[in-house]
Amino acid sequence: MSVLNVLLVAGTHGNEINAPWLFNQWSNNSNLINTSHIEAFRVIGNPEAYVKGKRYLDRDLNRSFRTDLFTYSGSGDKEISRAKELVSIYGSVGRNPCQIAIDFHSTTSSMGNSLVIYGRRPADLALAALIQFRLGLPIYLHEGDSSQTGFLVESWPCGLVVEIGPVPQSVLDARVIEKTRLTLEITMDLLREVLSNSISYPNNLVVHRHLESLDYPRDNNGVLKAFLHKTCQGHDWKPLEYGTPIFLLSDGEIIRFEREDRPVPVFINEAAYAEKNIAMSLTKREVWNFQEDWKEELEKIIIS
Amino acid sequence: MSVLNVLLVAGTHGNEINAPWLFNQWSNNSNLINTSHIEAFRVIGNPEAYVKGKRYLDRDLNRSFRTDLFTYSGSGDKEISRAKELVSIYGSVGRNPCQIAIDFHSTTSSMGNSLVIYGRRPADLALAALIQFRLGLPIYLHEGDSSQTGFLVESWPCGLVVEIGPVPQSVLDARVIEKTRLTLEITMDLLREVLSNSISYPNNLVVHRHLESLDYPRDNNGVLKAFLHKTCQGHDWKPLEYGTPIFLLSDGEIIRFEREDRPVPVFINEAAYAEKNIAMSLTKREVWNFQEDWKEELEKIIIS
Repeated sequence: MSVLNVLLVAGTHGNEINAPWLFNQWSNNSNLINTSHIEAFRVIGNPEAYVKGKRYLDRDLNRSFRTDLFTYSGSGDKEISRAKELVSIYGSVGRNPCQIAIDFHSTTSSMGNSLVIYGRRPADLALAALIQFRLGLPIYLHEGDSSQTGFLVESWPCGLVVEIGPVPQSVLDARVIEKTRLTLEITMDLLREVLSNSISYPNNLVVHRHLESLDYPRDNNGVLKAFLHKTCQGHDWKPLEYGTPIFLLSDGEIIRFEREDRPVPVFINEAAYAEKNIAMSLTKREVWNFQEDWKEELEKIIIS
Repeated sequence: MSVLNVLLVAGTHGNEINAPWLFNQWSNNSNLINTSHIEAFRVIGNPEAYVKGKRYLDRDLNRSFRTDLFTYSGSGDKEISRAKELVSIYGSVGRNPCQIAIDFHSTTSSMGNSLVIYGRRPADLALAALIQFRLGLPIYLHEGDSSQTGFLVESWPCGLVVEIGPVPQSVLDARVIEKTRLTLEITMDLLREVLSNSISYPNNLVVHRHLESLDYPRDNNGVLKAFLHKTCQGHDWKPLEYGTPIFLLSDGEIIRFEREDRPVPVFINEAAYAEKNIAMSLTKREVWNFQEDWKEELEKIIIS
């Protein structure tokens, strides 16, 4: 059985502190997670922001893994340097090249325990399907959104984000730490089963495919003029019906949802996303047949 | 009926954004709250921190109302200047002298809708008793804690803090805004009833008197080595029994609560208090008879 190099990232956003705590705990107790046959490289994504308890210093690290930013050296943004550094160490030509990257986040919205994948890379789909088959969690497929690009895991051959919430930023929550640990442990188990050729793949994959993001209503100067209606708060992953109140304007007027296709909202009222003009993202739930080439791509990456 | 000047403060902490939102809404709709016979001066406590979405810039504004800091001009801390400014405008010798100050906050801990009063000023006790009688909310009496001083409302003849949660920092939550509005409206109604001599006082006041604050377990370097046990999360206002698990150490060891007097915890795992070395504050629930001099003091201040 060969050895697989896996990059595990916590604290890509410095105020999401539960996964970093778990990593520290793991440093103190190497038996916390079984990593036999796996070389697990644990890093704090944005250590400076983590120390300061901020999401980031100059720009969102998890939107900074873009080759156009890497080649343009003029900005001096700390996160661009950090992104380049991580790729230079753990990327394909680095001293510790990793085949897989798992990036652990938390949300203030009620996302529960979920995965995010970017685009439709076959190996990502295979790995996400395996985790979903074992843990029964929902998967947000982010694609076709030109305003949000440069995610960390895209710089590795295979990778996904684990999102766990709700938890306020900068708060340690025992339940979030435990869910993070469980997802990490199961992922390591699954990778080992792939490595040892003892894995069973599911027959399908349920994704929530990104359709569009909705912003909060704003005035002509871009200032927020409504907040999320209480009917929506905490209703992530539940289909939005036509006519549901979604925003409440300052003057008491209710804005209702006017699509009839019952999309499924995620990242509802997420603290970190107000600055990105996202009140929620709408998705469509789809059940996909598991494809043989997903498995082949994943195994090609893992069993090299 | 005379007119009462009341100072209403939101955003004393810049990342507690629900009360500021309500104030903006009120600016756009002057009928939102009935303030007849009351001159309500609405201010954003820390406007610079509010714009930046931070609790504060240099130091906690709500620990900066201290005459020793005011007279020492060397520090240059923005919050000390702001505290002096607020007192100079709305204090007893300012151009808009206010008799009462109400300071609206939010918590990440599950405090529900509650009041905080500082020390035992008779007028504060009277006003808190009136609000409690009308809304049935708990009151945290903060006193005898030399590590936490310089609260805004203490610089006015009568004043109290309204705390509403749980809500993550920097998140607008419809329920929090609504509870803030309700508390504000009831407080204005009550003050008007005092002014018009049509008020009825309750027979008693239930306080949760501060006993001590507990820090998280830390190592010799001050680094956190445990987090709150899940048994405690969200259990604000519920008596802590002997033997309850309260912290979980990195190595899995459980720290149990070892007092037998069943104190009542508040501000459990509050995001803003980790830096103040407070994992929770312990209080004792006490029922006090309403005293005639509380009423006299409040009326002396209000009906001047």
